[in-house]
Amino acid sequence: MESLTINTRKRTELIDITAQVARLVEKSGIRSGVCILYVPHTTAGITINESYDPDVTEDITALLNRLVPPDRSYRHTEGNADAHIKSVLVGCSLVIPVEDHRLTLGRWQGIFFCEFDGPRTRECRVKIISDQK
Amino acid sequence: MESLTINTRKRTELIDITAQVARLVEKSGIRSGVCILYVPHTTAGITINESYDPDVTEDITALLNRLVPPDRSYRHTEGNADAHIKSVLVGCSLVIPVEDHRLTLGRWQGIFFCEFDGPRTRECRVKIISDQK
Amino acid sequence: MESLTINTRKRTELIDITAQVARLVEKSGIRSGVCILYVPHTTAGITINESYDPDVTEDITALLNRLVPPDRSYRHTEGNADAHIKSVLVGCSLVIPVEDHRLTLGRWQGIFFCEFDGPRTRECRVKIISDQK
Repeated sequence: MESLTINTRKRTELIDITAQVARLVEKSGIRSGVCILYVPHTTAGITINESYDPDVTEDITALLNRLVPPDRSYRHTEGNADAHIKSVLVGCSLVIPVEDHRLTLGRWQGIFFCEFDGPRTRECRVKIISDQK
Repeated sequence: MESLTINTRKRTELIDITAQVARLVEKSGIRSGVCILYVPHTTAGITINESYDPDVTEDITALLNRLVPPDRSYRHTEGNADAHIKSVLVGCSLVIPVEDHRLTLGRWQGIFFCEFDGPRTRECRVKIISDQK
Repeated sequence: MESLTINTRKRTELIDITAQVARLVEKSGIRSGVCILYVPHTTAGITINESYDPDVTEDITALLNRLVPPDRSYRHTEGNADAHIKSVLVGCSLVIPVEDHRLTLGRWQGIFFCEFDGPRTRECRVKIISDQK
């Protein structure tokens, strides 16, 4: 298993890690299989969406803040209850098929690490498994 | 890896693809393993829920429209920002165990392709991996 | 594939099943691979979040009830439409890497079965796959 280190800069932001993950897939030498992304944090997540127009990720974080306000209306007293809930809604684990040594991402898709309680130093674990005997 | 083509008819709808996926699992000849479903789009998703009462999927799309209104209150100017956000909330990747040549779906579960910016011609990639040596 | 039986006690609650899943990973004898968790229900889900402060799971269920009210404003007439929608938002399938015979959970992470229409007797399927040839 490999691991990416991600230094986030804002409280809430989506960071494109597609290139780093693609590099690990290439390095693995695995032709066909799956790439599992796993975020070992409870106030962060991982998702796939459009990487072309940065307004899209701005819209995603703005809407999440509207649905789950970053305020003190929660029982958890550390001031980051909203970040825990966003992590549940977005998820912390993803599986992407690998074919011909490549992630089978769609044309507009990028992989985003989702910071909901930054800035922090974060980790994304990357496990690539072959399905060839 | 196999691929399903899905022709959607409405802007927002959930389309039951259980039978098509089950057929690919059967065709693969794989007795035990996992089935990975992957949607290579940024304004669509994939989920599992009740396939018996069609009101359930109507409720799901209505509630998503309430949480993420399909209007122009977003930065992304293509008019489908809500569809990108719904894709993040629902997810574009799923893993289902395979046993005895079958998806281990629960009694009421069906697999749904989620269109959030149709009508379009869409794709769902299906990768079935054996865990037998 | 293994299976856990979970007896839920409330209509909506998150139940920590980390210890039971960890035990199955150990029992499998698999050193490196992935653990797939699959919930075969349409009004329940599976997620990972903080297991230390019980206020976190209370905040999660309270916010989900705010976003998806448990009332009769839906088309599905069984009184549990909200539970179906929560299941879609949270998800019913998870993948966690396994290394050195252990789930690679983060320090604060626990695995939670999510009951949205209890109390009921529920099931969580656990499939552990080795990536060693």
